[in-house]
Amino acid sequence: MRMAELSAESGIPVATIKYYLREGLLPAGERTSPNQARYGEEHVRRLKLIRALVEVGGLSVATVREVVAAVDSDRAAYSVLGVAQRALTRFDADVPDEDREWAMGVVGELAREHGWKFGPDNPVAELLVGTVCTIRALGHQALLDQIGRYADIADRIAQADLDTLEAGVSMDRIVEAAVVGTVLGDRLFEGFRRLAQAAETARRYSVG
Amino acid sequence: MRMAELSAESGIPVATIKYYLREGLLPAGERTSPNQARYGEEHVRRLKLIRALVEVGGLSVATVREVVAAVDSDRAAYSVLGVAQRALTRFDADVPDEDREWAMGVVGELAREHGWKFGPDNPVAELLVGTVCTIRALGHQALLDQIGRYADIADRIAQADLDTLEAGVSMDRIVEAAVVGTVLGDRLFEGFRRLAQAAETARRYSVG
Repeated sequence: MRMAELSAESGIPVATIKYYLREGLLPAGERTSPNQARYGEEHVRRLKLIRALVEVGGLSVATVREVVAAVDSDRAAYSVLGVAQRALTRFDADVPDEDREWAMGVVGELAREHGWKFGPDNPVAELLVGTVCTIRALGHQALLDQIGRYADIADRIAQADLDTLEAGVSMDRIVEAAVVGTVLGDRLFEGFRRLAQAAETARRYSVG
Repeated sequence: MRMAELSAESGIPVATIKYYLREGLLPAGERTSPNQARYGEEHVRRLKLIRALVEVGGLSVATVREVVAAVDSDRAAYSVLGVAQRALTRFDADVPDEDREWAMGVVGELAREHGWKFGPDNPVAELLVGTVCTIRALGHQALLDQIGRYADIADRIAQADLDTLEAGVSMDRIVEAAVVGTVLGDRLFEGFRRLAQAAETARRYSVG
């Protein structure tokens, strides 16, 4: 199909598609003349994925570029998942060294109990260390006291995540499915959690 | 304390503090001369909260302004929580009308089963409807098939959230605690979920 049809099919304006092409998010079409190119179903599919990651996942164009590069790479699926997970996990706040050591102890202890493993400079560990330090700095000890309960629930949701991944897709789409599951699955769960919090508040305090 | 001490105490540069004052995130200090003002512990505390919401929670300055305005308002705690929850939930993608109707049915059915309630134009419902539509458009039916399992886990985590809130704080800080719990608690759980996913992947496929 031509650019105009690709735009109609995907529901994305031509100018936006050209921007994604320039930014390397979308592979070039097959050139049929100096001014024209042909696009296929894989372009429609990729555009839908980009839109989901940007609009629903709230990812920046730079992060989407990293994620689709990982999806397109020839690396083994689980290695690609690691790259995607890193791209999806951002944590930029600075943490003082002495706080870091304490927080790494808290996170490391939980990881041992739950059989979680992570290497040095893992961005997920950075996120956890920074978040734990911030919670302490704000004086919300109660949240730290309950941290093990959240870790238990995380194990449950990870089982659901892997069951979902296995149920749904062929190997050639498993990396895309994992990215969608991570980005949209987080948003879905965020929404459920908010509704459940409101309902639980109403139950306990008879409001609402 | 003076501006320089407030900066030293909170670890936030003077220029940034002045920006927060101008933007209405931080209440003005008590003026002691035309060029000087005095700040108290409540300013240190508020600065830590702002930094946590911006750096760890990834919120925009505009969203932080809405959230702290809700924290500062004289409204009842549970009404403030509703305002904060709305400010914290952003969903901007457009959804076609026929998809919306179907997705609202899916979300409404889950809400009935779980005792969740929401009014028209609730931003959390918008988030869920949009996410469900996007997942379907991408063809990830397996994720929709498992949606009830995620909803069950959300009920569990909401119980942990409310227990945490009740354990920790006096009423005058409960709104702040709920905001911290929501923003930082989401980030914490996101990190745990990633580590648990990696461990579950390794267990099932003997990799890593």
